[in-house]
Amino acid sequence: MSKIKRVVIVGGTHGNELTGIYLVKKFERSPHLIQRSSFESLTMIGNPKAYAIGKRYVDTDLNRCFLRQDLENPNLSSYEAQQAKIIYQTFGSQGSQQADFVIDLHSSTANMGLSIILSNENLLNLQLAAYLTTINSKVKILYSTSRNQERPHLDSICEFGCTLEVGAVAQNVLDAALFQETEEIVRAILDYLAAYNQGNSPDGKETISVYHSIQTIDYPRNELGEIQAMIHPQLQFQDYQPLDPGEPIFLTFEGKEIVYEGDSTVYPVFINEAAYYEKGIAMCITQLSHKNI
Amino acid sequence: MSKIKRVVIVGGTHGNELTGIYLVKKFERSPHLIQRSSFESLTMIGNPKAYAIGKRYVDTDLNRCFLRQDLENPNLSSYEAQQAKIIYQTFGSQGSQQADFVIDLHSSTANMGLSIILSNENLLNLQLAAYLTTINSKVKILYSTSRNQERPHLDSICEFGCTLEVGAVAQNVLDAALFQETEEIVRAILDYLAAYNQGNSPDGKETISVYHSIQTIDYPRNELGEIQAMIHPQLQFQDYQPLDPGEPIFLTFEGKEIVYEGDSTVYPVFINEAAYYEKGIAMCITQLSHKNI
Repeated sequence: MSKIKRVVIVGGTHGNELTGIYLVKKFERSPHLIQRSSFESLTMIGNPKAYAIGKRYVDTDLNRCFLRQDLENPNLSSYEAQQAKIIYQTFGSQGSQQADFVIDLHSSTANMGLSIILSNENLLNLQLAAYLTTINSKVKILYSTSRNQERPHLDSICEFGCTLEVGAVAQNVLDAALFQETEEIVRAILDYLAAYNQGNSPDGKETISVYHSIQTIDYPRNELGEIQAMIHPQLQFQDYQPLDPGEPIFLTFEGKEIVYEGDSTVYPVFINEAAYYEKGIAMCITQLSHKNI
Repeated sequence: MSKIKRVVIVGGTHGNELTGIYLVKKFERSPHLIQRSSFESLTMIGNPKAYAIGKRYVDTDLNRCFLRQDLENPNLSSYEAQQAKIIYQTFGSQGSQQADFVIDLHSSTANMGLSIILSNENLLNLQLAAYLTTINSKVKILYSTSRNQERPHLDSICEFGCTLEVGAVAQNVLDAALFQETEEIVRAILDYLAAYNQGNSPDGKETISVYHSIQTIDYPRNELGEIQAMIHPQLQFQDYQPLDPGEPIFLTFEGKEIVYEGDSTVYPVFINEAAYYEKGIAMCITQLSHKNI
């Protein structure tokens, strides 16, 4: 087992997600909160220019800029493409301050609770996630990739790490309760890693519930691409709740219900995330599995 | 009593408040929904360029551009200053399509329910508001000006009219339940005006509760202007609820409570509105009065 030597905590990968930004500012004012004796803890605002203008991004979504071929492509010159290269060259493998573990702090207008999004299923990540579910009942474990697909997300710069996705909270708003819960999770992660370095990891549950993202569903749209329906009121804020075939998922502006046409029970997440309208995503569909670790 | 001859319904005065924008689009697809025999109903997207970029405004807040001296000032040339002049020259007094009644559709990240914001207390506005409180228990009447102060808001282009402020909903998000409730209120207003034109206004309550805005409270800030605290969890989403002196209103990032230091019970609104961080407003303080009409 190799020890964790450096952890980087990133807030503001999206400039309008204030929870992570103000948490990073707090840690920079009070670094003792994130210092642990067996590793170094660093902080970073991922997209400072987007934060300055109160938007998710300047040119393009920073959290989709971390595919290896894009990081190595000198022709990509958007602000975020450049920022991704700087982050990777700093904290990535062979980086000047190579990190072993990354915590990327996000918030969502969807009711994501305290979601731990894992970029891979290595044992440290899974055991950590299992432990975090014992800290707060709002913790959910979301596994967002298929086995063969490279991820373009910031957390892919390290083998170990996770993205925290907390909500529901509006963009450009601080919710004090979520702020405190996010801080508690970050500090619990650091404590866990400190114990891990000592070969003394605290126990989590032996069986964890993992939500695997399997597809996305877009809003119904017309030929111009304009949306024709809204998330159904019965589904709004029902992230991680079971959705059965035949249950309504959309309501058209004229009041007609549109139902889920899958053939088994699924668990939608990122329901009505503001930033996903432009991505063609009304919700992400997950399947629930129970994993022994 | 002069009759209402033309009503204008405005959505998207702020480009990231989708409820009004999609409601106006619906009315433009189905104009029969807003047609009434005794008056003409028109619709308008107030700030189309801001909507196109998913922001509240391009250069400056359109809903603060309607002071008479600003509308008459040829040196003001921001996009919104020009847009305000066009709106006023079209629908204002002496406008090419002078309107008698304006409905301006807004949404808020604060828990504003279905707020009817009145720009003045003339009898038609008050009787209409009294009627609307009988339609939906979430309707609240907010009176936002002092007697001697000119208002810079779009709804000031007409003597009669109101601003609808619905929430809580995140910016750039559609909430289906709020969309339907907003539509119901707009159609109830049009029905009321049609009955009013026939001298047959439906009765509302004889006594109404009116919340008068008396001051605003900013976030605690440091010498750089950075906020030092968040809305206290106990106050979040508690718009229109009584707040007593000594009750907590803010929580610093370090966890210290800051209490309300007024000397009587008040009723905060616009608590944690995303767009008001930059305006130096954490909440608006109102006093409640009961008015016989």
